Amino acid sequence: MKRFIYIFAFTWMVIQVSAQEKIFTLEDLIPGGNSYTNFTPKTAYRVQWYGDDLIFPDKEEIFLANPKKPDEKKSLLTKAALNTLLKQTNLEISQLSFTTINNKPLAAIRIPTENKQVYLDLKHKTLAFETTFRQEWENADFCPKNKETAYTKKNNLYIDREGQTITVAEDTDEAIVYGQAVHRNEFGITKGTFWSPEGNYLAFYRMDESMVGNYPLVDISAREAQLKNNKYPMAGMTSHEVTLGIYNLSSKTTTYLKTGEPKDHYLTNISWDPNEKFIYIAELNRGQNQLQLNKYDVETGEKALTLFEEQHDKYVEPQHPLQFLKNFPDRFIWQSQRSGYNHLYLYDTSGKLILQLTSGNYSVTNSIGLDIAEKNVFIVTNELNPIEFQAYKVALKTGNKTQLTFEAGVHQPNINLSGNYMIDRYSNLDTPLNIDLISTEKPKPVRLQTAKNPYLGYAMPTISLGAIKAADGKTDIFYHLVKPVNFDSSKKYPVVIYVYGGPHSQGIKNNWLGSVRGWDIYMAQKGYVVFSLDNRGTSNRGADFENITHRQLGIIETADQMEGVKYLQSLPYVDADRIGVHGWSYGGFMTANLMLRHPETFKAGVAGGPVIDWKYYEIMYGERYMDTPEENPEGYAQTDMNNLAGNLKGHFLIIHGDEDPTVVWQNSLSFLKACIKARTYPDYFVYPGHGHNMIGPDRVHLHEKITRYFEDYLK
Amino acid sequence: MKRFIYIFAFTWMVIQVSAQEKIFTLEDLIPGGNSYTNFTPKTAYRVQWYGDDLIFPDKEEIFLANPKKPDEKKSLLTKAALNTLLKQTNLEISQLSFTTINNKPLAAIRIPTENKQVYLDLKHKTLAFETTFRQEWENADFCPKNKETAYTKKNNLYIDREGQTITVAEDTDEAIVYGQAVHRNEFGITKGTFWSPEGNYLAFYRMDESMVGNYPLVDISAREAQLKNNKYPMAGMTSHEVTLGIYNLSSKTTTYLKTGEPKDHYLTNISWDPNEKFIYIAELNRGQNQLQLNKYDVETGEKALTLFEEQHDKYVEPQHPLQFLKNFPDRFIWQSQRSGYNHLYLYDTSGKLILQLTSGNYSVTNSIGLDIAEKNVFIVTNELNPIEFQAYKVALKTGNKTQLTFEAGVHQPNINLSGNYMIDRYSNLDTPLNIDLISTEKPKPVRLQTAKNPYLGYAMPTISLGAIKAADGKTDIFYHLVKPVNFDSSKKYPVVIYVYGGPHSQGIKNNWLGSVRGWDIYMAQKGYVVFSLDNRGTSNRGADFENITHRQLGIIETADQMEGVKYLQSLPYVDADRIGVHGWSYGGFMTANLMLRHPETFKAGVAGGPVIDWKYYEIMYGERYMDTPEENPEGYAQTDMNNLAGNLKGHFLIIHGDEDPTVVWQNSLSFLKACIKARTYPDYFVYPGHGHNMIGPDRVHLHEKITRYFEDYLK
Repeated sequence: MKRFIYIFAFTWMVIQVSAQEKIFTLEDLIPGGNSYTNFTPKTAYRVQWYGDDLIFPDKEEIFLANPKKPDEKKSLLTKAALNTLLKQTNLEISQLSFTTINNKPLAAIRIPTENKQVYLDLKHKTLAFETTFRQEWENADFCPKNKETAYTKKNNLYIDREGQTITVAEDTDEAIVYGQAVHRNEFGITKGTFWSPEGNYLAFYRMDESMVGNYPLVDISAREAQLKNNKYPMAGMTSHEVTLGIYNLSSKTTTYLKTGEPKDHYLTNISWDPNEKFIYIAELNRGQNQLQLNKYDVETGEKALTLFEEQHDKYVEPQHPLQFLKNFPDRFIWQSQRSGYNHLYLYDTSGKLILQLTSGNYSVTNSIGLDIAEKNVFIVTNELNPIEFQAYKVALKTGNKTQLTFEAGVHQPNINLSGNYMIDRYSNLDTPLNIDLISTEKPKPVRLQTAKNPYLGYAMPTISLGAIKAADGKTDIFYHLVKPVNFDSSKKYPVVIYVYGGPHSQGIKNNWLGSVRGWDIYMAQKGYVVFSLDNRGTSNRGADFENITHRQLGIIETADQMEGVKYLQSLPYVDADRIGVHGWSYGGFMTANLMLRHPETFKAGVAGGPVIDWKYYEIMYGERYMDTPEENPEGYAQTDMNNLAGNLKGHFLIIHGDEDPTVVWQNSLSFLKACIKARTYPDYFVYPGHGHNMIGPDRVHLHEKITRYFEDYLK
Repeated sequence: MKRFIYIFAFTWMVIQVSAQEKIFTLEDLIPGGNSYTNFTPKTAYRVQWYGDDLIFPDKEEIFLANPKKPDEKKSLLTKAALNTLLKQTNLEISQLSFTTINNKPLAAIRIPTENKQVYLDLKHKTLAFETTFRQEWENADFCPKNKETAYTKKNNLYIDREGQTITVAEDTDEAIVYGQAVHRNEFGITKGTFWSPEGNYLAFYRMDESMVGNYPLVDISAREAQLKNNKYPMAGMTSHEVTLGIYNLSSKTTTYLKTGEPKDHYLTNISWDPNEKFIYIAELNRGQNQLQLNKYDVETGEKALTLFEEQHDKYVEPQHPLQFLKNFPDRFIWQSQRSGYNHLYLYDTSGKLILQLTSGNYSVTNSIGLDIAEKNVFIVTNELNPIEFQAYKVALKTGNKTQLTFEAGVHQPNINLSGNYMIDRYSNLDTPLNIDLISTEKPKPVRLQTAKNPYLGYAMPTISLGAIKAADGKTDIFYHLVKPVNFDSSKKYPVVIYVYGGPHSQGIKNNWLGSVRGWDIYMAQKGYVVFSLDNRGTSNRGADFENITHRQLGIIETADQMEGVKYLQSLPYVDADRIGVHGWSYGGFMTANLMLRHPETFKAGVAGGPVIDWKYYEIMYGERYMDTPEENPEGYAQTDMNNLAGNLKGHFLIIHGDEDPTVVWQNSLSFLKACIKARTYPDYFVYPGHGHNMIGPDRVHLHEKITRYFEDYLK
């Protein structure tokens, strides 16, 4: 079988730890468990850059070293010295903990007990300045240039200037929201305020939600249950309307950009021009298949120029703001999937393409930054292997690309100010975490730190990575496979498939333990084979790989997952009569697809927070992948799990948080209703007070609940 | 063992049907199942009184007979003749279906397709008059005297007079509700309008709910889930305020009775004086331990007289309006539990007690009515046997009581106009339904109708009735016990206990099949012993028996149920390791009590719509039995199932309707939360779109779900 040959062609290591004495509990393996943090790989120092130098921060002292001689650590600052410095502010810290700002010789120290943030000039060992944060401020956004903080209270927006409050935008109607993230945090949007480079302006989102339907969430922790309305525009419904205001700090006036109609378009990737005269918006139509990069005049609000357009039959999805050069302030780097893969393009502000910096049938998965001279941009790609991530530098003049990391695995690099050195954090299947120092001129790694295997001494399963062909017979898709602890090849084992399978995800990587989850290890300890596969529709494999699911979510993904099942069924130690499946969110949707489209295959399944019917999902994500219910009635019908409720044969447990604001409760409740009508018998559980995911100690309960279900029906 | 001797001292029959070929499905046995109605006992005619004569209504023809010669049936009216009559109104009926009004020679025929109701003078075979009902009318209340109909629309109250609309009371604030039942239908309240005897006035409730908290119910059947607020005052919270308005039809003015303060008192059992000058209200304080029977002047609204007061350490619970005599219009019959049992008292309107009509250590469970001469009042009591109900007549002058029915079982009598004959419907353990004619002078039954055993030819279990001692060691409490079909005394069987156990209930009666439910038979068919027991706290056994649970709901009841368990454990064919329990509502609360207070005893339980914490229950019922959380913190704490969540050991499935307006969802959701915190593992299911009970075809699904749970964990 071709598939088999293919698997062994890969050279990934397989962990072979014989069964040991120590046994895991869920507290050890599940985030929120009381011993969970004992099992994350740790190094002695969290090494970072400080200008061009390495610093090694500890709780009591910070050490500094020149990257040429990393072993020659010198004391930079002690806690005692810092507290002496802090005395002039009447502040004191009990433990060193700080963040460098933009890799510059300025460090911010947060003193939460006093709601203070102190800025330290590490070079001169002086206090640069301090700011106050108030508990009630939300979305606080500090501008290091003008040292003011923008923040929101309820739906309104203010600026704190040395303790004085400046009102930027207020509305008594709570449906008008200022200064917060919009479009449900899609399109890379994570915040709602944008300081201009010199701190003279504050750009901010204004969102009018008055026309958007409320999804009624109910908080049962109150004496009598309380309504908590959640503005939740569902696919095909009326959307909110977003505009961008520019607050001028000197004139104290606001100009709203004339972004025009239709008002339900998307204003994404807000980027300031270094000259502060213009601001850029990547504007998407509601259909999400046409993008304009528009430049607006800050003073008049008028559109100055459309730099370029991008369009696609399925969807365009801008995720990265413009990255302007300092030495050529009319040039910027733009990231786009227009070639079918995410690549970097050097543009000027007239919209002229100067150079396509990267190209090829692979994705730039991360753009790390530029050296101070702006000769190179540093990036991460998976061009050598879809599940491994290596660092490169790309010359801005020529686009010439040089590989900087070579060890198999997943690399997370950071460059210093000059870009001549890189700190490289990486892991792979059997490497918990190594931190190397790499010269970007002569890329030969020097080991700075290494993390011990936190699982040493515990009974560990064998984990392997591999690939099979997708249902199209030609595309490689990747899996990890966990064999039961104390594996005996003559036995037949039950299987649990863990599935996610949705866009913006890659669950199989050659990183520590091959991305398996703690619960997978727990189940292997209990005698299960655990398997996971990245079907088509997932990320970092190019646009065609991901968008093949457009207008038919779940169909292709399920077909690919069934190739994984066929592979499992071909394994001599797999009991094909005891296959289960578990997934959350999109993975809950996938679990439902597998249970209901292949009822003869799966004996048990557990779906958490599952999408059941895409018409209950929100506009931004839902319409990107499914269009509207009016535009795509057949697609919505064929992907609606309620229409398949009558197929249910196996044991199927559905779990939902009763305050889920993301995949609203209506999904799983409507599925129960459909099953009741169809006279099928799913099981159900609710985590009251939880949203889309169960976090904290309750996550341990959740996994015990899931485990019991498989133990009841697969064992 | 004394208990055993006691059981066999009873003489109730035991059905001994050997196993047959035919097997039941849940569709046969569960209300809502598609073949369910085939299995209810039926007679050829639904015999009823028409004045002094018997009538035998059929779909095509109505027959009449003199009770002296019941076999000599004469045709009274055919469908064809009626349709000829109806032609003048352009109406037609397809099937005879009518109601006699107050046992008078007037029959109402509802013609739903036309929203018409036609009143027929059966004596003269003429159309007396007709009225129109509109689909949008709610709470329609027709007055036969003035032929007008009071009805509500939204929260407002109107009268229809020959097609014209009279506005009685309107308010734009929907929290002000007119003409509807108040106090959550407690205290025998079933409606909100009360026509005066001559039809000159309409009394109506006005309820101000503006100060009452909303429980947010969510309807998921909408495109996007919709909020449906439910005014739900919880125990100890602010209650609604009720007043009584009197609308004068001639002056078109409304007088509100001056019922005074505190405004959260209860206005119950509204009763008109025959002279229309006064109206009576049984007024209860919020504490429900003091009652005043007050008389109000209809014109001025002033209180005219307090006739008498009743009080009790625990609670007083008036359930029956005043029953005025026609021949002595200043006299009325009052029902009260003041002696410890429900009895009849003859009063005059000055408040003077003329005669206590009945007395003794038994309850009058039903007052049937008076003969036209008002010599006798006809009643039903269980004085001979707590689980059997016989009819009596009581002389109004002397209180002399004469027994009229004698067959063991449960009798439901109806008297004719003169009171010289009675139609007696009765059943007992092995009698599906007999209808006898009984002379009230010489009470010797003549069989009019008998129902065939609808289960004939089906494999039936053996059902027996018996009694054991309560946990106090002295009180008799009654059970029914269903043995598995094809019972083999050498085998060990699992048991399901079905429990309700709350006030206002009696689950064990010597009626058809001893009150067992269809599902009990189904489970017996599947090989289970099914058992049910009326613990102390249930009805028809006197006030002390019922109110012993005051301020500590669930404690005594659970102790008594455990006596039932001990009895079961003593039976040689019961497998004590496989005992399960199931109940709904109060029975869900009891199931939780049993599972959590006796975790070693019960292997599996299913609780539906359970009260979990009485502080989430509504004021009227909750405070009667528990007082307020502030008055009884210990009682609330010890009866809060959330405090016992950590005790859970067995398999415990909780089921709830997501729109339950009675036992709000907060109950079972808070229990899940408590179990998650305590790291215990209940199971859960939701019936979306259902209220407190699952009705219709979904009820069959529900019972399949429950059955599977016991099959999973008790088999």
